[in-house]
Amino acid sequence: MSIIIKVNMSTKNITTAENPAYKLLGGRALSARILLDEVPPNCEPLGPKNKLVIAPGLLAGTPITSGSRISCGAKSPMTNGIKEANSGGNIGLFLGRFGIKAVVIEGLPTDDNTYVLRIDKKGSSLLVMNELKQLGTYDTDQKLRATFGKDIGVLCIGPAGENRLKMAAIASSDPNGELKFAARGGLGAVMGSKGVKAVVVEKTLQQPVYHDRQVFMDMVRTIHAEFINDPKIKNVNQKTGTATIVKAVNAMGALPTCNFRYGAIDGVDGLSGETMYETITSRGGEGKVGVSCMNGCLIKCGNIYPDASGKKICSTLQFENIALLGSNLGFTNLDPVAMLNYECDDIGVDAIEAGAVLGVAIDMGMGKWGDLDGCMALMKEIRSNTLLGKVLGHGVQVTGDVLGSRRIPAAKGQSFAGYDPRALKGNGVTYAMSPMGADHTAGNCFGSRGEVNPLATEQQGDLSKSLQYKMCALDSLGFCIFARPPLFKDPSRMSTLVNAFLGTGLSVDQLWEIMGVNAVRTEREFNIGAGLSPANDKLPEYVYAEPLPPTNEVFDISEQECLKAIV
Amino acid sequence: MSIIIKVNMSTKNITTAENPAYKLLGGRALSARILLDEVPPNCEPLGPKNKLVIAPGLLAGTPITSGSRISCGAKSPMTNGIKEANSGGNIGLFLGRFGIKAVVIEGLPTDDNTYVLRIDKKGSSLLVMNELKQLGTYDTDQKLRATFGKDIGVLCIGPAGENRLKMAAIASSDPNGELKFAARGGLGAVMGSKGVKAVVVEKTLQQPVYHDRQVFMDMVRTIHAEFINDPKIKNVNQKTGTATIVKAVNAMGALPTCNFRYGAIDGVDGLSGETMYETITSRGGEGKVGVSCMNGCLIKCGNIYPDASGKKICSTLQFENIALLGSNLGFTNLDPVAMLNYECDDIGVDAIEAGAVLGVAIDMGMGKWGDLDGCMALMKEIRSNTLLGKVLGHGVQVTGDVLGSRRIPAAKGQSFAGYDPRALKGNGVTYAMSPMGADHTAGNCFGSRGEVNPLATEQQGDLSKSLQYKMCALDSLGFCIFARPPLFKDPSRMSTLVNAFLGTGLSVDQLWEIMGVNAVRTEREFNIGAGLSPANDKLPEYVYAEPLPPTNEVFDISEQECLKAIV
Repeated sequence: MSIIIKVNMSTKNITTAENPAYKLLGGRALSARILLDEVPPNCEPLGPKNKLVIAPGLLAGTPITSGSRISCGAKSPMTNGIKEANSGGNIGLFLGRFGIKAVVIEGLPTDDNTYVLRIDKKGSSLLVMNELKQLGTYDTDQKLRATFGKDIGVLCIGPAGENRLKMAAIASSDPNGELKFAARGGLGAVMGSKGVKAVVVEKTLQQPVYHDRQVFMDMVRTIHAEFINDPKIKNVNQKTGTATIVKAVNAMGALPTCNFRYGAIDGVDGLSGETMYETITSRGGEGKVGVSCMNGCLIKCGNIYPDASGKKICSTLQFENIALLGSNLGFTNLDPVAMLNYECDDIGVDAIEAGAVLGVAIDMGMGKWGDLDGCMALMKEIRSNTLLGKVLGHGVQVTGDVLGSRRIPAAKGQSFAGYDPRALKGNGVTYAMSPMGADHTAGNCFGSRGEVNPLATEQQGDLSKSLQYKMCALDSLGFCIFARPPLFKDPSRMSTLVNAFLGTGLSVDQLWEIMGVNAVRTEREFNIGAGLSPANDKLPEYVYAEPLPPTNEVFDISEQECLKAIV
Repeated sequence: MSIIIKVNMSTKNITTAENPAYKLLGGRALSARILLDEVPPNCEPLGPKNKLVIAPGLLAGTPITSGSRISCGAKSPMTNGIKEANSGGNIGLFLGRFGIKAVVIEGLPTDDNTYVLRIDKKGSSLLVMNELKQLGTYDTDQKLRATFGKDIGVLCIGPAGENRLKMAAIASSDPNGELKFAARGGLGAVMGSKGVKAVVVEKTLQQPVYHDRQVFMDMVRTIHAEFINDPKIKNVNQKTGTATIVKAVNAMGALPTCNFRYGAIDGVDGLSGETMYETITSRGGEGKVGVSCMNGCLIKCGNIYPDASGKKICSTLQFENIALLGSNLGFTNLDPVAMLNYECDDIGVDAIEAGAVLGVAIDMGMGKWGDLDGCMALMKEIRSNTLLGKVLGHGVQVTGDVLGSRRIPAAKGQSFAGYDPRALKGNGVTYAMSPMGADHTAGNCFGSRGEVNPLATEQQGDLSKSLQYKMCALDSLGFCIFARPPLFKDPSRMSTLVNAFLGTGLSVDQLWEIMGVNAVRTEREFNIGAGLSPANDKLPEYVYAEPLPPTNEVFDISEQECLKAIV
């Protein structure tokens, strides 16, 4: 089945149709295709012509581990180009099981009501639920569970999305009642502009139709066995999670510190994955490590971070947020990071962007480094949607522009992630060249630091390019990027899964081409139409000029080398 | 002589050199050439790579009427593309007499000092004058005259420019001690970023060297005679000035009213040129009409608008400012317009952009229509550089984006001028297609309303194109656009002037080509490099969708028709 649900918020009309042309596309690749086909690229991101595409990955609904992520896509109010952000949670699994390839929310309401889109086995309907207005994501999720049952899949926005702040995220409920985030690029603002507070999908046990279930399940078993037998999964991912790399990034001098003024911080131990693990396990209570964000995920890199009394502060504390809300704001302790992280999650903003915003604000004199109260006060401004809150809530480019900063850590209007491009130059290339703007998930070179010297001025273009289309393929299939070792070890496993599922005869090359290369090219084509010409493929001037301690490197990758990264 | 003065604010080094390659270029054309040659188009507008080019028109320094305008050019922080804005005043005349083709201010200071660039017969020097910090333009100008003599030519910025607000203008002192403005596109912020508060040019009686003075002066006399004998000059320009057209623009339904929600206002008589003339002449005191903004100008469309006691409020009250600060804010009386106009002038912001900003702010609930106190309070925020002041001071696009408006009257980030594009569609084409963004001086179709129906969907592209390069030629020669009747009646008069001055043998076609067509193309080339691809040649979505009373027209010019306007 290739069901596309279209929800027109101008007319409140919902249509459901099969579109076999989209058979081979899922997640990010499908979102890119629909957007290029249906949205005028130079339209206003928060206007009636933009569409929000909610598309589970191609393999979503199947039991393959870490393979039912939900992809959200739209023209981004942050980058003014195309954007895709994906997350874990239940909803991808349920949509996949229903055979729904995409939910496309279009138009713009003329009324002020708060809508919930409900999808169940009987179909789709729009409900007015004004009682959810301006609720945080956690309250929203709980009220929806109270209304529709605790096992639903939920996508929702917080006040930031309703207030159409450009750094608004989309939250996705996970099997533990926690929220994960399709955070980057302001897709929550697009959802908010449509008047949709939440999408609720009924839990279903319905199973997808397989072309060859046996072959598919055999491959699932092969891959799962490798995960289960991989000691790294158990000893690293399930303990220190993505925070495993905090010390390594600090050691290479790429850890954002005090608004990207330094690449390392004294006292990094206080932010490390090891400290996180010890804190969570020693505090006990609601604290947990080894938490899955999708049903059946074997990686389990999630956690619940508790306070000293054992009460949950936030879930999940992870590397990017520790970098941006931690060292980048001058903290060397995880408690304030976790508290800021919860604020971001509940307000419904991208925690990476928020950390960059606070960093620029403090750097411009609006606070002090390592001052939790000051940071919480700024977060409160965002939640309350004051003038200052709006400025901050529109992200680091707007914040820096308004305040007159010349040190805005952003590319294509979107903040850098947790790697300073001067000390991990491949990520600088990705930030500059990816259609996604400064987004580490679009092609993170950190994992390749053994193959390509992070400070080298060569090979970075090819590395970024290769990662860009490979990560895109994962995003399109519905895989978490941490699932890549057993998949990339033998990429024919991915084509085997797809072919057994759909009855196609894809080669590995064709898989990379369709899920990865073509999708990124489609995104780039959209961006060109949106007015993001190649002249926009750049980093801010200060990273070319200001040496970053302790490596004292600048971003010195030639334009020619960067151009190699065009997929 | 083709003297180019380069002032490097990083090193404080000043060089003076002749550049014969620029012999045929002046004003806007020269500015465009220098910027494309020397500034990386995708640099940061307020960073060290941008340059501020101050270039008198090609004929500046000669006695031809209305022909010594000063042109300022840079990459604009408002549009992110190239920008030129020109004004009257003394400085163009004096620079032209000194044989100085351009002053190029480059680099970025590392100190916080406030600099004045002084140019006199002995050369150029940079003076530290921290006593000017944060002074309004009027106080700045007076202090400079007190220091350097009352007959100097001054370019200066107000607090807005020092604070690098994107709508900061550059003021130019005129023969009456009043200020005129190179207002649009935020060039004052570029000057402020360079640490330069003012450029002071000594008065000189030195005369330019003519190839054939006799022929030149004969042509000057021919043109001047037509001005002197033209009853329209005396009876219209010298009485009601540019405000002559208020009622006509209102009658065609194109007068910006209440943030471009309407195209006409009840009580327009209170804003008309006729009322302005009667008010000025009946109040007497310091009030004056028929004021020149350049030495020897025969048009004299300027005025000094007094309050009821005869004390000057502002100079000059003119059409665009009456439209944007008047009807667009719901006023039907010139006194509040004049008071707001003075605030804009003294703070040093573009009054057109400021009117659009206040309109959007009021429309978003930050004030009431026709409320002077409310508007003055917002202007005070800008002067004081508060957070709100910064938001507003960065122009209508930033203001509207931050506040979440979907009705932002801007193209390429710059506010519409005093003509709603839905009821004067040719100006909509110019706003969308000109490299200058929404700037009426780049090709104002109002004067052609007898030839091309302002509501027609055809002929607008060709009309806009023709006006774009012709206005550019005037900007390059140094002419005021109101000088055009005797020039355009027989364009060979312009080539005669140039040839007699420089000893060239330009045909009329070559003149249009060099001063007009090539200059606009140079600007467009810069913009492409800056990332302003053709996808950015557009108007905001609401003007395509929202009918404008009383004509109830939308902007319905086809893309194909718009493309005809590319010079």
